[in-house]
Amino acid sequence: MSRTLFTVGPVNVEQEVLQAQTKPMITHRSKEYKALHQAVEEKMKKALETDMDILMVGGSASVFLEGMIRNGVKEKTLGITNGSFGDRSIEIAELNGKTVDKVQVGWGKAIRAEHIKGKVKKDIEAVHWVSNESSTGVFSDSNEIADEVRSQNPNALVFIDAVTSAFAMDLKLKKLDADAVVFGTQKALALPPGISMMVMSEKLLKKAETVPNRGFYTDLIKVKKQNDENYALTTIPVSLMFALDFQLDRILAEGMQARYRRHKEMGDIVEKWADKKLYGIFPEKGYRSNTISVLNKGELDFAKFHSALKSRGYEISEGYGNIKDKTFRIGNMGDTTPAGVKKLLSVMDEILEEKA
Amino acid sequence: MSRTLFTVGPVNVEQEVLQAQTKPMITHRSKEYKALHQAVEEKMKKALETDMDILMVGGSASVFLEGMIRNGVKEKTLGITNGSFGDRSIEIAELNGKTVDKVQVGWGKAIRAEHIKGKVKKDIEAVHWVSNESSTGVFSDSNEIADEVRSQNPNALVFIDAVTSAFAMDLKLKKLDADAVVFGTQKALALPPGISMMVMSEKLLKKAETVPNRGFYTDLIKVKKQNDENYALTTIPVSLMFALDFQLDRILAEGMQARYRRHKEMGDIVEKWADKKLYGIFPEKGYRSNTISVLNKGELDFAKFHSALKSRGYEISEGYGNIKDKTFRIGNMGDTTPAGVKKLLSVMDEILEEKA
Repeated sequence: MSRTLFTVGPVNVEQEVLQAQTKPMITHRSKEYKALHQAVEEKMKKALETDMDILMVGGSASVFLEGMIRNGVKEKTLGITNGSFGDRSIEIAELNGKTVDKVQVGWGKAIRAEHIKGKVKKDIEAVHWVSNESSTGVFSDSNEIADEVRSQNPNALVFIDAVTSAFAMDLKLKKLDADAVVFGTQKALALPPGISMMVMSEKLLKKAETVPNRGFYTDLIKVKKQNDENYALTTIPVSLMFALDFQLDRILAEGMQARYRRHKEMGDIVEKWADKKLYGIFPEKGYRSNTISVLNKGELDFAKFHSALKSRGYEISEGYGNIKDKTFRIGNMGDTTPAGVKKLLSVMDEILEEKA
Repeated sequence: MSRTLFTVGPVNVEQEVLQAQTKPMITHRSKEYKALHQAVEEKMKKALETDMDILMVGGSASVFLEGMIRNGVKEKTLGITNGSFGDRSIEIAELNGKTVDKVQVGWGKAIRAEHIKGKVKKDIEAVHWVSNESSTGVFSDSNEIADEVRSQNPNALVFIDAVTSAFAMDLKLKKLDADAVVFGTQKALALPPGISMMVMSEKLLKKAETVPNRGFYTDLIKVKKQNDENYALTTIPVSLMFALDFQLDRILAEGMQARYRRHKEMGDIVEKWADKKLYGIFPEKGYRSNTISVLNKGELDFAKFHSALKSRGYEISEGYGNIKDKTFRIGNMGDTTPAGVKKLLSVMDEILEEKA
């Protein structure tokens, strides 16, 4: 059956956005595509308030998370992790033959500058972390971390996995001045999955020129060269590009500050509900994500609860990684509204009352 | 304006197939997705008459062309090329740090067993070529080449770029017994771009276990492990999976032998027309592609001609690579019909007569 998704991703996609995928096909080397590519990049730059290049490639965000490592690192990185996706970035670097110095932050805790004091040594070529850790629902202050990285080693590249934060929580990209900020279509952009995006600095591009074995598919020098002509390097999901262009118009019409406020409101609603009706929110106060609420499961039989919820037309997400058994997750991102979240919670209330 | 595409890819997609992308979104870790993934793989196996695993990942076919090299080769390959895409496969291997012994076959000529006599030495770990070279319109007999590879070195893996042949020309996969056969959605499957596919052997999987630096996104061991559970490794384009499932039903209803015959018929129609009305077909007789007709341009002013064609609602493709100035291309693949091709050619006749 069809359900309204309050999931961590792919998230709910509005019918009119899905419909935008059905425009007649065009080829990725046509003038029509060139205009589309340019429009999409310009709208993204406007929304994210950045002048940096925004590159696009077919694939999930992981393909550019791998690409940033292959392009920016010859030998050694510093990987900071406070959850499953931080661990995954470290795994990706290692599987690409890099050495990773690791900083492990407690699950549910934010990454702070203090965690990397004295760790960004001279031989560290890049430092990478997750802005909004999807397994724990923690939003770390990437500006604070980036400033600390640069104060220790101005040459170190700053790589940010922004998969569940970009377009939902203000990353202040101008101030942040990161070298790679990676995200995809199926999270806060509220589109189907299929395109990976990277906000990329000139500094990373310069570094790539010195790095061997960058591969082909995400070679940033090749991708950037095509992007300068408003093309993708390889065939990009054209139908999804139509939907992305359409969705960016909707997003700009809402306004980014309004969008960020809407996400904050939804996060707050779920937090209050969790405190009152269940066992509270897992991560520490002050660093809670507005896009993914990770709730303590306590005594709740989540499988039964979720089954009842699904039978009423709603879907949320189970816990992930080390805390899979202790938590469950509600996605508050994309085109989800406070009214929609309240409706979801009222259905959850009904189910809890029936069980009581 | 909207046009009917007789292009090399992305190709024309029928409106009902585009519409199949608009089903309500599901997550890629749900039971519903699992059933979809399984159905898609089974239908592809049936259509291609193979029992081998068929893996899927978000991206254009290039992502698995890179993946097959990263997973199957530690040091050295033999790359056979007779056009731009053969050259690209060699480039991909080299950009991934592999050494490539090269065999250059003339543009417009088919790759034959005789071209690799004595070349598949003991240290060659894989031999790769393009089944249907999209720049020249040549279809080589991959069975003949694969047999020759194995007669010289039974350990060498056989890697085939089947991007413009799979689902349109019979590759006889059972007899072929290749280790990687790679293709994508936007060519003969007549879908939007976005998913890369690989028919993979157990032999390649075993080899991968011994190859370091396989990366993450297309690590075949990880992808296969998830595929055994009917999941993708990373988030796959879900809306396109809906369309793929729908399109595979249409393809199986047509029947693969009928589909192969239809493509042969279309290739023959264009060939006869080119001989009669223009300057004939570029590649050698006996090895002409049924999916991409590469026509000699002769005296034709292609830019003007194509512009007139586009204004009448049709789009074809310009020449590619070294023979860009000498040729142009007509795509006869996907859901294109002999009647549709005849209609296109009649419009082309009109334009030629006006200019005469």
